[in-house]
Amino acid sequence: MTFNTEQAPGVEGKVPQQTRGFVFNHTMLRVVDPSKSLAFYSKVFGMRLLRTSENPDAEFTLYFLATTEGEDVPADQDARAKYVGRRQGVLELTHNWGTENDPDASYHDGNSEPQGFGHICFTVPDLKAACDWMDENDVTFKKRPEDGRMNHIAFVKDPDGYWIELVEHSG
Amino acid sequence: MTFNTEQAPGVEGKVPQQTRGFVFNHTMLRVVDPSKSLAFYSKVFGMRLLRTSENPDAEFTLYFLATTEGEDVPADQDARAKYVGRRQGVLELTHNWGTENDPDASYHDGNSEPQGFGHICFTVPDLKAACDWMDENDVTFKKRPEDGRMNHIAFVKDPDGYWIELVEHSG
Repeated sequence: MTFNTEQAPGVEGKVPQQTRGFVFNHTMLRVVDPSKSLAFYSKVFGMRLLRTSENPDAEFTLYFLATTEGEDVPADQDARAKYVGRRQGVLELTHNWGTENDPDASYHDGNSEPQGFGHICFTVPDLKAACDWMDENDVTFKKRPEDGRMNHIAFVKDPDGYWIELVEHSG
Repeated sequence: MTFNTEQAPGVEGKVPQQTRGFVFNHTMLRVVDPSKSLAFYSKVFGMRLLRTSENPDAEFTLYFLATTEGEDVPADQDARAKYVGRRQGVLELTHNWGTENDPDASYHDGNSEPQGFGHICFTVPDLKAACDWMDENDVTFKKRPEDGRMNHIAFVKDPDGYWIELVEHSG
């Protein structure tokens, strides 16, 4: 690991003032069955569902989740909207209605061809304890810490097969 | 938009204590040419490159960026590692060496078939001003605010064609 970030190619040295207030808010993944995905992310990863957005005309629903430990999440609707919009680290799950009843419905994880998106990552205080918790919840591993050379990371799969990296906070 | 999040299917009502300290840290995207991607994200979106990780054996480099406005980013290497590992909203770009010199190299955006990952999103203080800034930087639009029904959002493309949503903070 290096921190010679000034020497990386192409990097703008100064944050342009036109980007003031820009927030990397969320990452969107499509999911086949929201009940499975919501159960998974809220239980196994301790994320809190902060907002839903149902769009009957186009027949899809959006679910916004985040890890919110130690944060004061507003209950009031307007305050909640502002909180969700201004924060980082939101996971948006898109459910196109009906896929949960279609045995052929599936999504592409981005790691087999054609490649693109790779994974999302949760940092954890203790990798061993986190892996035990995954096992307790029958989560599928793509890579256990002891597999391969990189013993400080693990990969598990979410209900749609998207890869989730696990690494200790300072790993 | 609704906030009836308690009624969403499958949601665990209580954050399990086994997930204490879990942080939704980052999202990983593969990029063909890091100099283009780093220039794009650092200039157009004002992200700061926080860490790089070069892996000569496997011939890839990882770049970790975030919007850090108003934050105290440690310069010290150990403190920086902790800061990057414990924060949310990190974008990890993976560069497999040599793709920048391969005219046939490209990555899949997840929105054409096979679908999966959809987009990342930046919230902004002023959508019109943000779109003007995109134009000033010759960024390609997938959807301008005035296109279609959803006039409160825009989509642009990053150098690899990944979609980036723009929406106002409370939009």
